[in-house]
Parts: sequence; structure tokens; C-alpha cells
Amino acid sequence: MPFTPPTLDEINAAHRSLASMIRRTPVLSMPPGMIAPDTGGDGMLSFKLELLQHAGSFKARGALHAVQQLDEAGKRAGVVAVSAGNHAIATAFAAQSAGSNAHVVMMQHANPLRVARCQALGANVELVADVHTAFARCQAVAETENRTMMHPFESPHMIMGAATLGVEFAQDLIASGQPPLDAAIIPIGGGGLAAGMAHGLKSVWPDVKIYGVEPIGADSMARSFASGKPEKLSGVQTIADSLGAPFALPMTYELCRQYLDEVVLIDDPAMIGAMRLILEVLKQAVEPAGAAATAAFLGPLRQKLAGQHVGLIVCGANIDAASYAGYLSSADAA
Amino acid sequence: MPFTPPTLDEINAAHRSLASMIRRTPVLSMPPGMIAPDTGGDGMLSFKLELLQHAGSFKARGALHAVQQLDEAGKRAGVVAVSAGNHAIATAFAAQSAGSNAHVVMMQHANPLRVARCQALGANVELVADVHTAFARCQAVAETENRTMMHPFESPHMIMGAATLGVEFAQDLIASGQPPLDAAIIPIGGGGLAAGMAHGLKSVWPDVKIYGVEPIGADSMARSFASGKPEKLSGVQTIADSLGAPFALPMTYELCRQYLDEVVLIDDPAMIGAMRLILEVLKQAVEPAGAAATAAFLGPLRQKLAGQHVGLIVCGANIDAASYAGYLSSADAA
Repeated sequence: MPFTPPTLDEINAAHRSLASMIRRTPVLSMPPGMIAPDTGGDGMLSFKLELLQHAGSFKARGALHAVQQLDEAGKRAGVVAVSAGNHAIATAFAAQSAGSNAHVVMMQHANPLRVARCQALGANVELVADVHTAFARCQAVAETENRTMMHPFESPHMIMGAATLGVEFAQDLIASGQPPLDAAIIPIGGGGLAAGMAHGLKSVWPDVKIYGVEPIGADSMARSFASGKPEKLSGVQTIADSLGAPFALPMTYELCRQYLDEVVLIDDPAMIGAMRLILEVLKQAVEPAGAAATAAFLGPLRQKLAGQHVGLIVCGANIDAASYAGYLSSADAA
Repeated sequence: MPFTPPTLDEINAAHRSLASMIRRTPVLSMPPGMIAPDTGGDGMLSFKLELLQHAGSFKARGALHAVQQLDEAGKRAGVVAVSAGNHAIATAFAAQSAGSNAHVVMMQHANPLRVARCQALGANVELVADVHTAFARCQAVAETENRTMMHPFESPHMIMGAATLGVEFAQDLIASGQPPLDAAIIPIGGGGLAAGMAHGLKSVWPDVKIYGVEPIGADSMARSFASGKPEKLSGVQTIADSLGAPFALPMTYELCRQYLDEVVLIDDPAMIGAMRLILEVLKQAVEPAGAAATAAFLGPLRQKLAGQHVGLIVCGANIDAASYAGYLSSADAA
């Protein structure tokens, strides 16, 4: 049965049910010249600082929404998730908030801060060699321990969580007297954020153009758009570990087809360059994925979106100081 | 004639007059265990993220308030300011916003991003060898060019700007259902922020305790408190250039005596350690001065403020990516 996206009323209801447990993250608006001096003074950039969300990313919304749906037996049995880190932290956070418990499967090369955060939130952390093994282990733990699987993107709950982010972004711009967005740029890992947030934004503003952005080395959605079906990558090669989903899946793929106007690609140096700009102008310390939308605006979308009101989602940041300093100091920047 | 601090009604009126020109900066509240795991779960930390203010610091409030008071002839003649950088940027921003023009005097060793920001905002930037020369040049330019001197701290306008920050912080905590602050920690450079913000906070909550924090190598206010009169330092030695005022001055000193319950000292490694924590937990990229309040909470005030609701002001950040990475990578951290 195909997934029916939630109505605006349903998104608003979910948003209200989450309200006491999530942060209403701030929006910073500024002329594009603050970020790209040569673009002149026209247009406006509005950044949704979702990295200030609990657990450090938008993932907290969907994870909380998922655990809210569990009955008492489900909460006792607990949840299990696979993740490069942000979804694991969000799952641990949501489980702890709801009085449940979490087992999370992460890759051995996961940022050490992310592993520590999961442990601090009471999760049982299992480290495995690669992402395909991780998905397999997650499935196995779900079955043997009767835990509820918290998929990082192919999930109506994650879609709903991301939809609340899109609606909240629109509401906050409206409340502050800003004009509607002409366009929004949303990073794509598995596509749950892009699908859900695009749906939320278009529920408020049907004419807003939505641009998905993927790293060149993790372009499962762009390949899927090209072939017309969900594609699997043979490997993932990008510094944006949070965008490193190795495949697209049917539900999220179909929603992205429905709601995204275009998918663009960026490379790692572009993200490093955007991380530096975001530090200097927005004062935000973002991981590479958190800089992807800004990198897309500065790169492939620069001409197309000139003079427009563009929404950029700073989707998350969970990174240790040493790794972050390493990116800032890298010679490999755009 | 001694300075009469503004009433709460006057602060609210100034806040309203600034409302369309400043950002209402967000507040992040979290249990102290997020920052200091060994402090346990009691208490609450509320961070006022004033580094997201226009021009990157609280200085924009006072600078805008000052130029609002200029008549047309005063705006035409322009303003002049001396600054380690943040006040210069704020002055350039305020002058541009009001259709005036700014001459700013900065030290040669000022962070290059700060110089570039002033220039981008249309200011005439003059670089000099040291802070005493800078104050002298500023005075001379004010006299020869008939420019209005924008003092970085010894100014009723800067006090009023900082007072709006204190009142806004209190209003936002009240609006979000938080209990009143038991204490607030405010960095001291010249003392304008501490005096004004403390006054604003105490106008709302008369019983809140206010702790000023200074770098050990720029302890003009602590020395003034000890001697009972405004003291001048023979030199300034700290990485927190924004807190490097070389002397206390009478008005600000008297206000600090009136409103501050204590002044504590921190060293540079403590600020570097706090910068890393603020990156990892709050996702904010702060200059050393922006980490001073957090360093004081983690250090000299840790026992005293355990279990309390503590307000910490993240007062500003204007720093380039390379310099910031250098601090993160420094071996010299607490």
C-alpha cells in the first residue's frame, strides 16, 4: 500500500504533540551578500538552525514522534537503530525521554563524540565495520530482542518529524514578517529530511521550489532520479558522513520524486569552504552535512537562485573539536 | 553629575526603539550535566546567544542606540570609535544603518576578519600600534572631524544597550516558562556589558546574583574593586582580545560596584577549554571572550552555583576560521 503523506492538519497535530520535547530552533535571515559578497544585495537567505535541536539534529523530531507511538510493551522492549551517528543520538535521546531504552548500531569510524553522546544518553552502542553490516545487525537485533526498528529515513515517523520542521520554518518566517520562501535547499542522506521537510514547506507554500543536495560521493538519490527507481551505491566516499546513506528506498524515493524540483551535487571541498563561511558569518560550528545546503547555494544553485528568498536548512552538527578543527585547517577547500 | 541608571520603563522603551534593527537572540537552556558531566543533574544553565546579534556581538545594541540619538548634522559629521574589533564592527553597522558614517581605530594585531567586516560595512579603518595610541587617535579624530565619539563602554548608550540585553534575556526566560535566574555570569572588558546587563537583569529580578568574569591578564575591574577606585593596567595579556580594556573608568566602575556581587578571574587555557565545549555542546563557534562566562562557571564558580539556574552570556564572536581552528588545536587548554 503506498504511503499517504500527512495533511497539514496532521503535521500541525504532530508538531503540537512534540512541542514540549523539542526546541523551536531559531531562524537567521540575512542578505546573500553576507555569505557571498559578489552576489549583490538582492534576495534574502533564511537559515533554519536545526543543529540547535536536542540531540544536535533534526532527527530528534522523528525519533520522538516514533517513540510516542509505542505502547507500554513496546517501550519496555525498547528500540534499535542504525546510524552514522545523528540518528543514533536522536534515538537514544528519544528512548530516554520516553522511559524506553535503545540499542544503536554505528560504524567503527563514527565520530567519537557521537559514540560518547549515545552512551551518555543510556544507549547500548554496538560498533561494526561498515554500513551494510550495520543495517543487517540492526535487523537481527530487532528480531531477536523484539525491539522496534527505528529506520533512519524510510519511516513515516521520520517523514512526519521532518514535515514538522518544514512547517515550523514556514510559520517562523511568517511570524517574523518575512515574505514566503521562493526556494529551499535541503540535504539528502537517505532522503527522509528532504522528503518530509519539502512536503511540510509545500503544505504551507505550494509554489516553493525545493532543491535537494547530495555529496558527489553519496549520490544515491540523484542516481535514482536518473534511472527512475531506487538505486544502491557500491560505495560511499564523502566527508559528510551524515549524508552517506548507501541506497535510496522506495517510500522516500517516491516522496522525493513528488516533492523535489531538482537534486544537485556538491563536492567535499565545497562543504569545507561553506563550513568556514558558516563559522565566520553565522557563528555556527557545523559538521560537513550541516554545510551542504549552503555549499549548494554558493555553487550549483548560485545563478538560479540569485535575488530570491532562499531557505537553507542547517540540519545538524555532532562533531568533536579536534575533527572540526581538522576540517577548518584542511587545504582541501573550495 | 553622577550617571542615573535608566528605569525599567526607560530600558523597555529603548528596547522597543531598537526592536526592528536588532535580532532577538535565542536562549538555549540545558541541564548543567550537558556541559559539566560531573556536576549531576540539578540546576539549569541558560545561554543567551548574543553572538548571533547583528555585527556579531552585544555591541550593536548600544551603538544603534547611540546613533539613534544623533541629529541630522551629527549623522552627517559621522562617528568615531576605538575597539579591539567588536565595537568597531558594531559602530560601522550602526552608522551604516542610520545613514551616517564611521571612522574606526583598531590595533594592528586585530583579527583580520574584524578589519574586513568594518570595511565591508563602509567604515574608514585606521590601524595603530597599541590600545593607548588608539584611544588618543580616536579622541583626536573626534575633535578635528567633529565626529561623535562612540566610547566602547564608558557611555550611557552602551549601558542602555546592555540593559536591553539583560531585560530581553529575562523576558525570554519568563516567556518560555523557565524559573527566574538565581545567578548570571557576564564577561568584563571595560565593564559596560556587565554593568548594563546586570542592571537590566536586576530591574526584573532584584535578587539575582551577578558574577563578572575577567581574564587574569586583563583584570582592571578586579583590581579596581580591590583598591576602591578605577585602575589602569600597565599591560594586557590575554587571548580574549575583546576583554582587553586596559583600564576601568569612573561611570562603569561605579555601576559595576553597584550591580556586581563578585568578580572572578579565569586564565586563557580555561577559555580554550570552554570554547571546545561550547562547540561540541552548543554548536557555537565563539571567540575566547564568548567562552569566558562558561569558563567561569566551570572553574571558579562551579561549587558556588551548583544546583542553581544560571544565566551565561555568550556575548559575541567575530573570528576567522584559521584563528579559531588554531585555538581549538592548541595544546594549551584546561
